[in-house]
Amino acid sequence: MHTIVFPSFYQIFDFIGTLAFAISGARLAAGKDFDWFGAYVVGLTTAIGGGTMRDVLLGVTPFWMTNPIYLICSAIALIWIIIFKSRVTRQDHTWFLFDAIGLAVFTVTGIDKTLHLNFPIWVAIFMGTLTGAAGGVFRDVLINEIPLIFRKDIYATACVAGGLIFYLCMQLALPAEVTAIISGVSVFVIRLLAVRFHIHLPLVHLDKP
Amino acid sequence: MHTIVFPSFYQIFDFIGTLAFAISGARLAAGKDFDWFGAYVVGLTTAIGGGTMRDVLLGVTPFWMTNPIYLICSAIALIWIIIFKSRVTRQDHTWFLFDAIGLAVFTVTGIDKTLHLNFPIWVAIFMGTLTGAAGGVFRDVLINEIPLIFRKDIYATACVAGGLIFYLCMQLALPAEVTAIISGVSVFVIRLLAVRFHIHLPLVHLDKP
Amino acid sequence: MHTIVFPSFYQIFDFIGTLAFAISGARLAAGKDFDWFGAYVVGLTTAIGGGTMRDVLLGVTPFWMTNPIYLICSAIALIWIIIFKSRVTRQDHTWFLFDAIGLAVFTVTGIDKTLHLNFPIWVAIFMGTLTGAAGGVFRDVLINEIPLIFRKDIYATACVAGGLIFYLCMQLALPAEVTAIISGVSVFVIRLLAVRFHIHLPLVHLDKP
Repeated sequence: MHTIVFPSFYQIFDFIGTLAFAISGARLAAGKDFDWFGAYVVGLTTAIGGGTMRDVLLGVTPFWMTNPIYLICSAIALIWIIIFKSRVTRQDHTWFLFDAIGLAVFTVTGIDKTLHLNFPIWVAIFMGTLTGAAGGVFRDVLINEIPLIFRKDIYATACVAGGLIFYLCMQLALPAEVTAIISGVSVFVIRLLAVRFHIHLPLVHLDKP
Repeated sequence: MHTIVFPSFYQIFDFIGTLAFAISGARLAAGKDFDWFGAYVVGLTTAIGGGTMRDVLLGVTPFWMTNPIYLICSAIALIWIIIFKSRVTRQDHTWFLFDAIGLAVFTVTGIDKTLHLNFPIWVAIFMGTLTGAAGGVFRDVLINEIPLIFRKDIYATACVAGGLIFYLCMQLALPAEVTAIISGVSVFVIRLLAVRFHIHLPLVHLDKP
Repeated sequence: MHTIVFPSFYQIFDFIGTLAFAISGARLAAGKDFDWFGAYVVGLTTAIGGGTMRDVLLGVTPFWMTNPIYLICSAIALIWIIIFKSRVTRQDHTWFLFDAIGLAVFTVTGIDKTLHLNFPIWVAIFMGTLTGAAGGVFRDVLINEIPLIFRKDIYATACVAGGLIFYLCMQLALPAEVTAIISGVSVFVIRLLAVRFHIHLPLVHLDKP
């Protein structure tokens, strides 16, 4: 997940996102009485699952295999959960914001990496959404629950919208840094507004005959 | 999923199969109160999941990343479900036939692609079965149900049988087109006969001691 | 999974491990009334799932695609279950030992293969653990249960410990064969001691506020 665009800022946000995703996984694992190892795996899967699937589909070495920071960051999340226990609940608002930051950063990273590998923009938007949202799906499969993002809130949809805005900025020939920032901020803001104003996608249901 | 063997017919059947698989995913998602996004993802996973796993194992770029038709086709399936709702149930017979067409086409595609990459025939039969049947397994994992094909009906077994017939035709040195057609029709007919005459595989059970 | 280190012994242990893993998958599938095909797939996934994920992440052709022995071995496991039915339960102690042998052999294989591909030791330990323990996680996802190894016993943790011992032996510049044997025996012994003395990892739980 190296980028030449905005090294230091990017790395901080990437770390915050990884931490928030791992915390969300470890918390749900705790709710299912997992042991430390199980909670670590679920946290790690939430944090790196989307990017790993992206890299496997793109045919490149998964990003976390070249830098141990992602495994370490997931360990920090586990320790945090073990130390703070239920008090983590009181930090809910902060973790929600950090999770939204992660969603934004991961989406832009996924789009950027895919375009650099010369895939078309629609593959890039797909991969951006996968990077942001698939980790949460793997998390829910591991704890044997129906994936939350398929039923509740605007989550992956914010990634798709951010991807379309990325494409728009490209069409306007904006510089790469500006495009990345506008797209990422869009994902973040859409996610926040959707939760604040309880905006959902319609459900699909087959009226009983 | 390009083939030079029978371009136009093949593409129509491939499209019908993709549509049928995506419909089956989106319908089951609807039964679990998924939103539009969730239903789309489950439909798409059902349609492209098997072929994607095949391509990842074979080490080639997943087929749908070079042609947006598969993502579009899954969107059409979702729109169909949203518009027709429970009336889709009245189209059950048609969708069952289309699903069997998909099973047949995907199996032959998987075998063909694997052989062209110079893997042995037993890997090709494995990959053909994976292409035809794995999407349904991923679908059931995503909606948190025990995979249907592990407990009911002849489904993946029809793919294996079609693969063995493919091998037999190769031994008889039949032309590639004829081999593909005989193998595909076998999968289709075995699937239909199995459902028509309620043919099942035996269950494995451990008698309680 | 070829190795020049200790060909014949290694192959025997590799076969025993594959058999034990496939038996564990097929037994759990039997408990869920799967048919022969379903039980075969669950057994196969348990046996080759971890190594397959390792090879996909490492970007090499999955090991079982170059040698049909693993598919055959899983078929033998299924036939065993079908013939012996509930009497398999009386063989519990043997299968437990064989499973621990598999855990040890698969861990060392995973570490060895990863190092030969020039990845750093921490990636190798990760891949060793994945090779040993991930198959059981895929098994539990397929039968729609919460992965057992996230909540019970020392299992994957034994792989991690064996990996650290592997690293220690490397630092001591021990010969490759000795390193592999010490590391594998460690995994085996840790697994046995943990079960014998009911040693568990602490659970993560969020005290209700």
